[in-house]
Amino acid sequence: MNRGYNFSAGPAAIPTEVLERAQEELLNWNGQGCSVMEFGHRTPEFGQLLEQTEADLRKLLHIPNHYRVLFMHGSASHQFAMVPMNFLAPDDTANYLEQAHWSKKAIQEAQNFGNIHVQQGFQQTEEGLAIVPESDWQLDEDGKYLHFTSNETIVGVQFKKEPKAFAGKLVCDMCSDILSRPIDIEQYALIYAGAQKNIGPSGMTVVIVREDLFEQMQTHRVPSLFQYPLMAQHKSLFNTPPSFGIYLASLVFEWLLERGGVETIEQLNQQKAQLLYDAIDASDFYHSPVAKDSRSMMNVAFTLSDPSLDSAFLLQAKEQGLLALKGHRDFGGMRASIYNAMPLEGAQALVDFMKEFERRA
Amino acid sequence: MNRGYNFSAGPAAIPTEVLERAQEELLNWNGQGCSVMEFGHRTPEFGQLLEQTEADLRKLLHIPNHYRVLFMHGSASHQFAMVPMNFLAPDDTANYLEQAHWSKKAIQEAQNFGNIHVQQGFQQTEEGLAIVPESDWQLDEDGKYLHFTSNETIVGVQFKKEPKAFAGKLVCDMCSDILSRPIDIEQYALIYAGAQKNIGPSGMTVVIVREDLFEQMQTHRVPSLFQYPLMAQHKSLFNTPPSFGIYLASLVFEWLLERGGVETIEQLNQQKAQLLYDAIDASDFYHSPVAKDSRSMMNVAFTLSDPSLDSAFLLQAKEQGLLALKGHRDFGGMRASIYNAMPLEGAQALVDFMKEFERRA
Ligand SMILES: Cc1ncc(COP(=O)(O)O)c(C=O)c1O
Ligand SMILES: Cc1ncc(COP(=O)(O)O)c(C=O)c1O
Ligand SMILES: [Mg+2]
Ligand SMILES: [Mg+2]
Ligand SMILES: [Mg+2]
Ligand SMILES: [Mg+2]
Repeated sequence: MNRGYNFSAGPAAIPTEVLERAQEELLNWNGQGCSVMEFGHRTPEFGQLLEQTEADLRKLLHIPNHYRVLFMHGSASHQFAMVPMNFLAPDDTANYLEQAHWSKKAIQEAQNFGNIHVQQGFQQTEEGLAIVPESDWQLDEDGKYLHFTSNETIVGVQFKKEPKAFAGKLVCDMCSDILSRPIDIEQYALIYAGAQKNIGPSGMTVVIVREDLFEQMQTHRVPSLFQYPLMAQHKSLFNTPPSFGIYLASLVFEWLLERGGVETIEQLNQQKAQLLYDAIDASDFYHSPVAKDSRSMMNVAFTLSDPSLDSAFLLQAKEQGLLALKGHRDFGGMRASIYNAMPLEGAQALVDFMKEFERRA
Repeated sequence: MNRGYNFSAGPAAIPTEVLERAQEELLNWNGQGCSVMEFGHRTPEFGQLLEQTEADLRKLLHIPNHYRVLFMHGSASHQFAMVPMNFLAPDDTANYLEQAHWSKKAIQEAQNFGNIHVQQGFQQTEEGLAIVPESDWQLDEDGKYLHFTSNETIVGVQFKKEPKAFAGKLVCDMCSDILSRPIDIEQYALIYAGAQKNIGPSGMTVVIVREDLFEQMQTHRVPSLFQYPLMAQHKSLFNTPPSFGIYLASLVFEWLLERGGVETIEQLNQQKAQLLYDAIDASDFYHSPVAKDSRSMMNVAFTLSDPSLDSAFLLQAKEQGLLALKGHRDFGGMRASIYNAMPLEGAQALVDFMKEFERRA
């Protein structure tokens, strides 16, 4: 099989052009006579790579100067602990929206480190799963922050805009939609995103955090590598960084800038999602479990009206190079993740296959 | 420049054959139609890769069944916190050998999480820097473990054998000599090693830990991803693992097995080190700061008798494809790191260059 269209939710597709570039220079990066994986992180050349990577991300997301950008080891699940460890003094409280899978994990982890006020974020409506209207939320106004997941990867539920509550004090798990559309950074205290959807390989997490918050952050029994202020002070080089991940991210950011940045890719992402949701809505054979207003542009979940056809669907899709369409084990059905790296032709190929599969069923 | 001989201390050289294999399958791994970086970690195929990787490591190091092998996010500096967080209840003490650079960092970090009894591990002798004889150590017998660094990367000081004290309760930072020689696992409670010397790219750490110790481990305010028992329970898949790092490690382990394993590579490592130390000792132009019995087989530190020639040495070496010979910023001079991936020809090329440089100086 050649490269297929990869609908994996994560680790997810990386642009083919990026992988080709990485392949070309895998044994000899930047004329250095060795791979970027084999290269000292305290060299001027790596320093320049890191600076350029940060500059490109700042450009893509219009990150103001009073926010710091950190390239951290590990993944979003580390941040589930890191956020409350840094933000919450012993008697502090934080607000968390509960939204299906990932935010539950974030809540569970946070409860080890502080008082967590939970507000239900999702509800079942006649139209399907939906975000609870903000007017119905009851938050602890003294909370240090409000944590939410901008895009719930498992079922494909996405906020269209930032919540209005806790403006400037939002903490966001943006794993599965960062860089897919413009955001208003100033609404956030902190954003984190594991790399393996729209950034690069797993094992690295990008954090964007407002610098003036450092003053109040906790350090007692917080591992050095978990302390945001210390990481910022060392410009992500407190220790050996995940250098290959940073390198891959730099290529992905470059790729995105060459294609017009986040504003342009958003339009493409809308088109891809529209193609799929239209096909799902137009047929009784396929069904979206999510209410229209809450549907994700990144993860399109759907079920077959006859679940006994699921495995045939997956098998035939794979035969046509349409990969990793199986839904999350907690949800079942199908899920087409169409992050930035998925071209329009990939979404179209899936729609064509879905129609053909229905016709023959 | 083509690929040079890379003497970097870390991130360090990876076998060329391994990088060539990774290059070949970078866009399409295992016939899956996508890169291993883009591949779901809960798939049977990735599960098999992970299993094989562990099995190969067990084979290489003769790891008994009552030890668990974990592939963890992050690096050794994470373990500096993780070890005391897991092992030390509030009033517990641990012993740490202080050995130059890295162990000081380990001690500093550990002091945030427990009572740390420090024993000086290095001393200056007439012959140079040396390990303090074990008969002179004063340890806290009630300590939960004894932490030491088997190979101090910065100055190239290596234990020839495990300490006799705290047998079975040793905790070892084995970053820079794991897999370079056989070890007696049963002497250890826990071994950790960041990948970027003898295993693969940075951002992953291998932990080998005796399973019966899990029972007594702490969980209060310990992040889930820092809890060894939880990681073991989830077989390194508590969350998305650093999958590309695991993949690269699997290739490195395979490469090593094909070459006769750790027993064979040890002999090669001895030869390489001998070549270099002999050249250093044979000349007044070069000098080793380390006493003979304490010299490292992995990191050969040396100085030029005339330090004003340092930059010419480095420049001319680089021109001949002998890369990254600059000593650590805290030590100065030169350091030739000759981990497993360095072929004998690389060490020979460096010796030849050293002689030629001396002749012309
Ligand atoms: C929204 C979201 N948050 C958190 C995570 C957890 O990420 P990790 O497994 O890298 O810790 C995921 C993983 O897919 C996710 O989609
Ligand atoms: C012996 C030893 N311990 C610890 C470390 C720290 O590793 P890291 O920077 O990956 O945290 C190093 C790094 O070179 C090392 O050589
Ligand atoms: Mg997911
Ligand atoms: Mg329908
Ligand atoms: Mg080092
Ligand atoms: Mg000499």
